[in-house]
Amino acid sequence: MNDHERRLASVVEGVLESYRDHGNINHIDGNNLPARSEVSELLDDVLSIVFPGYFNYEPLDDLTVRYFVGARCARILRRLEQVVTRSLAVDCSHAGRPADEIGQSAHEHALELLQAIPSIRAALAADVQAALAGDPAACSDAEIIMSYPGVTAIAGHRIAHHLYCRRVPLLPRMIAEILHSRTGIDIHPGATIGRSFFIDHGTGVVIGETSIIGNRVKLYQGVTLGALSVKSREAGRKVQRHPTIEDDVTVYAGATILGGDTVIGRGSTIGGNVWLTRSVPPGTTVVLDTPSLRFFALNGDKNGIEKHALEKNGDKSGTP
Amino acid sequence: MNDHERRLASVVEGVLESYRDHGNINHIDGNNLPARSEVSELLDDVLSIVFPGYFNYEPLDDLTVRYFVGARCARILRRLEQVVTRSLAVDCSHAGRPADEIGQSAHEHALELLQAIPSIRAALAADVQAALAGDPAACSDAEIIMSYPGVTAIAGHRIAHHLYCRRVPLLPRMIAEILHSRTGIDIHPGATIGRSFFIDHGTGVVIGETSIIGNRVKLYQGVTLGALSVKSREAGRKVQRHPTIEDDVTVYAGATILGGDTVIGRGSTIGGNVWLTRSVPPGTTVVLDTPSLRFFALNGDKNGIEKHALEKNGDKSGTP
Amino acid sequence: MNDHERRLASVVEGVLESYRDHGNINHIDGNNLPARSEVSELLDDVLSIVFPGYFNYEPLDDLTVRYFVGARCARILRRLEQVVTRSLAVDCSHAGRPADEIGQSAHEHALELLQAIPSIRAALAADVQAALAGDPAACSDAEIIMSYPGVTAIAGHRIAHHLYCRRVPLLPRMIAEILHSRTGIDIHPGATIGRSFFIDHGTGVVIGETSIIGNRVKLYQGVTLGALSVKSREAGRKVQRHPTIEDDVTVYAGATILGGDTVIGRGSTIGGNVWLTRSVPPGTTVVLDTPSLRFFALNGDKNGIEKHALEKNGDKSGTP
Repeated sequence: MNDHERRLASVVEGVLESYRDHGNINHIDGNNLPARSEVSELLDDVLSIVFPGYFNYEPLDDLTVRYFVGARCARILRRLEQVVTRSLAVDCSHAGRPADEIGQSAHEHALELLQAIPSIRAALAADVQAALAGDPAACSDAEIIMSYPGVTAIAGHRIAHHLYCRRVPLLPRMIAEILHSRTGIDIHPGATIGRSFFIDHGTGVVIGETSIIGNRVKLYQGVTLGALSVKSREAGRKVQRHPTIEDDVTVYAGATILGGDTVIGRGSTIGGNVWLTRSVPPGTTVVLDTPSLRFFALNGDKNGIEKHALEKNGDKSGTP
Repeated sequence: MNDHERRLASVVEGVLESYRDHGNINHIDGNNLPARSEVSELLDDVLSIVFPGYFNYEPLDDLTVRYFVGARCARILRRLEQVVTRSLAVDCSHAGRPADEIGQSAHEHALELLQAIPSIRAALAADVQAALAGDPAACSDAEIIMSYPGVTAIAGHRIAHHLYCRRVPLLPRMIAEILHSRTGIDIHPGATIGRSFFIDHGTGVVIGETSIIGNRVKLYQGVTLGALSVKSREAGRKVQRHPTIEDDVTVYAGATILGGDTVIGRGSTIGGNVWLTRSVPPGTTVVLDTPSLRFFALNGDKNGIEKHALEKNGDKSGTP
Repeated sequence: MNDHERRLASVVEGVLESYRDHGNINHIDGNNLPARSEVSELLDDVLSIVFPGYFNYEPLDDLTVRYFVGARCARILRRLEQVVTRSLAVDCSHAGRPADEIGQSAHEHALELLQAIPSIRAALAADVQAALAGDPAACSDAEIIMSYPGVTAIAGHRIAHHLYCRRVPLLPRMIAEILHSRTGIDIHPGATIGRSFFIDHGTGVVIGETSIIGNRVKLYQGVTLGALSVKSREAGRKVQRHPTIEDDVTVYAGATILGGDTVIGRGSTIGGNVWLTRSVPPGTTVVLDTPSLRFFALNGDKNGIEKHALEKNGDKSGTP
């Protein structure tokens, strides 16, 4: 062993030793976890049959589509079985179960997701319609499906939420986080979201685990549906920590709505940058009372301040 | 067919049936669309000749650069022809045209983009200078080109905008969205942006389709140049829905400027978090009238509130 | 040469000519720069031994882990030597040094990073604990390590900061920007961050180069620790342009804290959307004095405005 080798060997020993010291961030028990790259490819596979013809190289027609879908479903089934098996192994409540029972359970989860594709597609068809109706810059279904991060986010969420509701551990959060990374939109897989949902632009949107969102709701970039306090689950059951948004509500950019008791009544409009921690009745428009702005002329110094508040034209200021 | 096979076959039939029910989110007409991965690689190819030596493994010198650029241009030409051909097929206005005419048109678009590289590079050289001048943490051109998301975003935008102006459908938006995903900066390819443009940090920036931005403009993270209302195109022609930002304007983090009639006069400074829906004359500084803050001491309860507003030092509060 | 060939040749000449005109955005001097994809893979390699078993396909157990770590350390050493060598070449202060001296220096940097893995792991073990304690939606260490962008960001930062402190040019910023792109969290590698650090959600967070953050600090999405002015380094030495956040401080979503003289005293809580450019003493809670909101009933017009301010319940409004 020369000096180079000795130094590297000592580095390796140091790393191994640190695995004994900080066990909480190791995973060295002989079981595989789902790899992020694997989950990412699996998600792309599912999206390729959810939006057929949009995310694959080969052209599809009425003849080829049956074989494409068949092959893709079979591949998804096998990949999903594996990934769900590994996810179940993380949850200690499955610790005692024999491997073939876990495998069978994973098979059922995988099959159920494939069986749910038609109903997920029905929801997404309405979401795409909502995007087309809601954005004057949108030109075609293709443009929306292929280039709207809000559509990517809700498509992935409807898949992740299906798995979350069936208590598959880890995997739904991994899917959500892959989508967060791709789109800047952070939807917890636990969130319940109705039909014809549209997020425009989307960067910075956060939708918490126990949020409940009705039909035809529209959110803009930077909207947070968050929790008021960091209470843990009470007595083992999950309490609603995030708001309820009823049907036909629009929330403009940067608005923050917090708290499990907060209900935004149907048909309401929440203006940009509004910070809400209480409920509002149906049909309410809430806008920020335009904050005073101060204007300085080009060579204005402190003595020469020309200060005047903006007109309080609340009917437009907060609601682009 | 065993039970497993039967269940999978029934799943496949279910998915195929849903393709008949929700036709708007299928693309099964035998034509290819540009794949996102393809467009992403194409964009990287273009960036590799726009910033030669920064995004490729092999070192370049005066001898090798000619062959590198030649090979790369030829490859871009072919890839771009294909992607533009498929993009044109999405636009119904090209529906009746014979395939070779569309192919010829795609060839011209591809060649024109390559011909525009020198002028795109001239603009980007000034953008990189603006970044170097505008950020005290910046050390070298290499650091800026290789690690500033604002530079990546404007480089991609100048490419996408060239295609948008020539009415290539779909592709410019796909490029914009790939950049949005990489950088968190969402610039619609329709936006008109002048020379020496710099976005610092950038996450959450949204620049709408009909925005007009002058020379030497600087934006920080979270700035929105948006629309006041969601009116569609009027009578077939496009109206300006987004603001005009004149030369030498700086807009600080989180500011929101809305509306097609809003003009920010040259040399103005818009402070952080300002919400503006009206024009300001040249040379104006607009800052938020510092909102009152409330301070509680460590064991302060409601009776013991020590409440005092911040000094109204508007000359610094909104303009970091 | 046919017409097609001639046009392409002329395009190539045009691009080459532009390389002579705008030299600042070329890198054609025969030296390689680190490729972003290379740095991204290297970062993944380092993370795979920092969190063993979480980011690799093959299962690890007590027998295999030694060989996995050995092989990975050797690979990281070689890759890091190369990337650091190329990074050093960017810095003009290394211009005159002979190649083998630079290579030796790169070897030392690479080895030192590997030697630091145990202490980086000790810090990250505490960060993961802080995340598990701080988020009621978190279920397991695995979920946090594999799907919390805040954990990815601080893991990468602790690696980048190690290199930054040893004055490796370019590479730390490239790592930071790869993480920014993946997570939406923008931490300059120069920032000094204490133990048990947690960022929840994270999109839009910006932490400037000279920020100093104590122990057990918690940040939410959209928080900026920024500079008040764009002064360059003074007389060659770096001044603190960004705030100091002492131990046990929580900063809620969207808050902006600016300035190198600004110190947030230990145990303080900064509410959502607060804009602070001055210091606060230890144990202070700062909340936005709830801005007046205006509420309109469903058919309310300007005459029928029902306007009432929100209760000023400052003890909860700004601190979810």
